[in-house]
Amino acid sequence: MAVNMKGIARDLGVSTVTVSKALRNHPDISKTTRARILDRVKELGYRPNLTARSLVTGHSSLIGLIVPDLIHPFFADVAKGLSSAVRQRGYFLLISSSEEDPELEAQEIDHMLAHRLDALVIASCQTDPTALRNVQRGETPLILVDRSFKSFPSYFVGSDDYAAGKLATEHLVNVGCRRIAHIRGPENSVGIRRLKGFLDTIRRHGLAIPEENIIRAPRVDVDGKLNGAAALRQMMALPEMADGVFCYNDVIAMGVIKEALSQGINVPEDLAVIGCGNLHYDAEIRVPLSSIDQRSNQIGGRAAKLILEILGSETPMEFQDVILQPKLAARASTERTARSSSTPAKTGAQRRSAANV
Amino acid sequence: MAVNMKGIARDLGVSTVTVSKALRNHPDISKTTRARILDRVKELGYRPNLTARSLVTGHSSLIGLIVPDLIHPFFADVAKGLSSAVRQRGYFLLISSSEEDPELEAQEIDHMLAHRLDALVIASCQTDPTALRNVQRGETPLILVDRSFKSFPSYFVGSDDYAAGKLATEHLVNVGCRRIAHIRGPENSVGIRRLKGFLDTIRRHGLAIPEENIIRAPRVDVDGKLNGAAALRQMMALPEMADGVFCYNDVIAMGVIKEALSQGINVPEDLAVIGCGNLHYDAEIRVPLSSIDQRSNQIGGRAAKLILEILGSETPMEFQDVILQPKLAARASTERTARSSSTPAKTGAQRRSAANV
Repeated sequence: MAVNMKGIARDLGVSTVTVSKALRNHPDISKTTRARILDRVKELGYRPNLTARSLVTGHSSLIGLIVPDLIHPFFADVAKGLSSAVRQRGYFLLISSSEEDPELEAQEIDHMLAHRLDALVIASCQTDPTALRNVQRGETPLILVDRSFKSFPSYFVGSDDYAAGKLATEHLVNVGCRRIAHIRGPENSVGIRRLKGFLDTIRRHGLAIPEENIIRAPRVDVDGKLNGAAALRQMMALPEMADGVFCYNDVIAMGVIKEALSQGINVPEDLAVIGCGNLHYDAEIRVPLSSIDQRSNQIGGRAAKLILEILGSETPMEFQDVILQPKLAARASTERTARSSSTPAKTGAQRRSAANV
Repeated sequence: MAVNMKGIARDLGVSTVTVSKALRNHPDISKTTRARILDRVKELGYRPNLTARSLVTGHSSLIGLIVPDLIHPFFADVAKGLSSAVRQRGYFLLISSSEEDPELEAQEIDHMLAHRLDALVIASCQTDPTALRNVQRGETPLILVDRSFKSFPSYFVGSDDYAAGKLATEHLVNVGCRRIAHIRGPENSVGIRRLKGFLDTIRRHGLAIPEENIIRAPRVDVDGKLNGAAALRQMMALPEMADGVFCYNDVIAMGVIKEALSQGINVPEDLAVIGCGNLHYDAEIRVPLSSIDQRSNQIGGRAAKLILEILGSETPMEFQDVILQPKLAARASTERTARSSSTPAKTGAQRRSAANV
C-alpha cells in the first residue's frame, strides 16, 4: 500500500493537516508532535509529492531569485540570506542569473513563472519596467531587490544608495581630498542615486566638479578590475588629476588601486580611493580598501521576511520599501590626515613621465 | 478559451511535440521554426504549466544542487557553471546550502527529492555515504561534485586533489623550502588526497616531516581566516618553525599571511605560503597568493554535460569519474630563489621576541 499523509495521520491519531504542517516546518506544531511525525515519516520512508500537492494547493513551495551574476559576492550574499530564511519555513529557492542582459532576464522570468512560484525576487537589469509590470499583473508576488524603478511602485528591499554616495564622498572630503572624481555606475536606481549623493555632497562643500571627473565605466559588475584600470588611465589623462575617487563598486576600486600603483601613483597619499559594497576580501588586498557597507547580508533576510508577510496576509498587502542604511568601513586606501590642498597636483602627463623614470 | 500547446501547434501547422521542443530549447528544432513558435507564444501570452507537465511526463525540469556554502567562491563558480549550462537545455537549478552540516544536508536532500528532480548534484559533507546510497537507490540520478567517497561508486566531477597536493608541495621544494608544514583539510576525499599528495612529495625529496608539522584547522571552509591565523600561531610555538606551508585552501592561506606579517614574519622570505583554489582576489591581496587552480569554473559545466548524457541515455549509464587536472598559479607569496637551507631557522620563541622588539 502506498504510504501517504492520511495513513501517517491515522497511525498517530492526528489530523492530516497536522502532518502536512509538520512536514512544512510550520510554527503551529509543537516540537514533540513534529518529532513524532517526522520519526514515523522516516520509518516509512515517506516522501511527499510536492508536484502533486502543488497542483492541488496552487503552491509550489518555490521562490524564484534572478540576479545579474551568481559569483558577484553581493548577490551571493543576498542569495544566501534569502535561502536560509525561507528554508526555515519549508520554501526552496530557484536561482538564476541574467548575466546583466535584459532580454535574457525576460526569458528567465517566463521560465520561472512556468514553475508556479509562490514569489519572485529580482535584482533587475531592465532599463524600463515593462516586463516587470507584466509580472505584477499576474498572480505571483514580485519583490525587487537592490534595484528599483522610478514610477513603478513595488515591494522593494535594498540599501539607501543616495546615503552610500553621500557617506563615501563625505569621507573623502574629511580626509582632505579637494578634487574628487567618481567612477559612476549604470543608469539604474543604484548608479543614479550614488551619483546624486556624490554630487550633492561635493556641492554642499563648495567644491568644483569638472564634468570630466565623472567617469563612465562600461559593465561595472562584470570585468570590474579591467574597467577600473581603464578608468584610472582616463583620469590620468585629465588636465588636473583628482586626489580622491569614489568608485561605484569595490571591484572597480581594486582595478583603480592596482593600476595606480603600477603607474607610480601612491594610494592613499596621491590618490585616496573608496569603493562601495564592502566585499569579503577588502581588508586583505594590497592597500586595504575603504568601502561602504551596504548590509548585503541583511537584504536576503529582509526580503524573506517581506515575502512571508505577503504570503501570510489574507488581504492584498500594500507595496512597501525596506531601505537599509549603509555605513562607512574606513581602511588604509583613504588613510591620510586632512590637509589643505594648496599644492596643485601634478598633471596626468607629468605624473606619467615621473612613473616612467 | 485557454491557450494551450495544442492550439498553438494547430495555428502554425506543426505538431505539439515541436511546440514543446521549441519551448524547451531543444536542438532538434530549426531556428526559424523556433522563432515562429516563440512569436506566437508571446502574442498569446502563453505560459506552459510546468507543474502539470511534470505530473504527466515525470520530469520537473529541475536540477537540484546542494553545496556546503553559497558564498564560498568555489561553490559559487560551480553553481554558475552548472546553471548556465543546463539552462540552455531548459532546465532550472534549485540551489541549497548545507552549511557544512551533515544532518542539515540530509534534510535538504529529502526536501529536494520531494520536488521530483530530474537530477541531484551534491558537494556532500556527509562523513559516510549512507544517506547518498539511499538517494542512489531511488529514481533521481545523483552526481557528486568536488567530494567523493571511498567504496561508493557514483557519477563524480571534481579535480585531482592528489595532484593538487603534489603540485603545491613540489613548488615549495623548488623555491628552496626544506621544513614544510601543511595545514590540512577535513576528513573527506579532498582533505585526505591533498594530504597524501603532500606527504608523498615530501618523502620523495627525502625531507623530514615531524608529525607536528601537519596542522589541523577546524572548519576550514567557514571562518578560514581566523583558523589560518590560529594555525600560524600554532606553527610558531613549534621547536623548529617551518620555512614553507601548503594551506588546504586560499582563505586559510590569507589568514596565515595576515597573522605572519603582524608577527614580524616576512612572506615569502621567512615563510613561503601557497594555498589551493585560486580564488578571484588572490592576485590582489597584500602579498599576492600562490595557489593551485582547481578549474572550479569547469566543474559545473562538466557536471551539466554528464547530467544531460545520463538523462538522454536510453539504457542506464555506467558510473564515471570526470577528473580535472589542477595547475600551479605562482605569485609573490612563494617568490624566492631556491637556496640551501643550512642556516637553521629561528625557533618560534626567538621569532616572537624579535617581533616584539
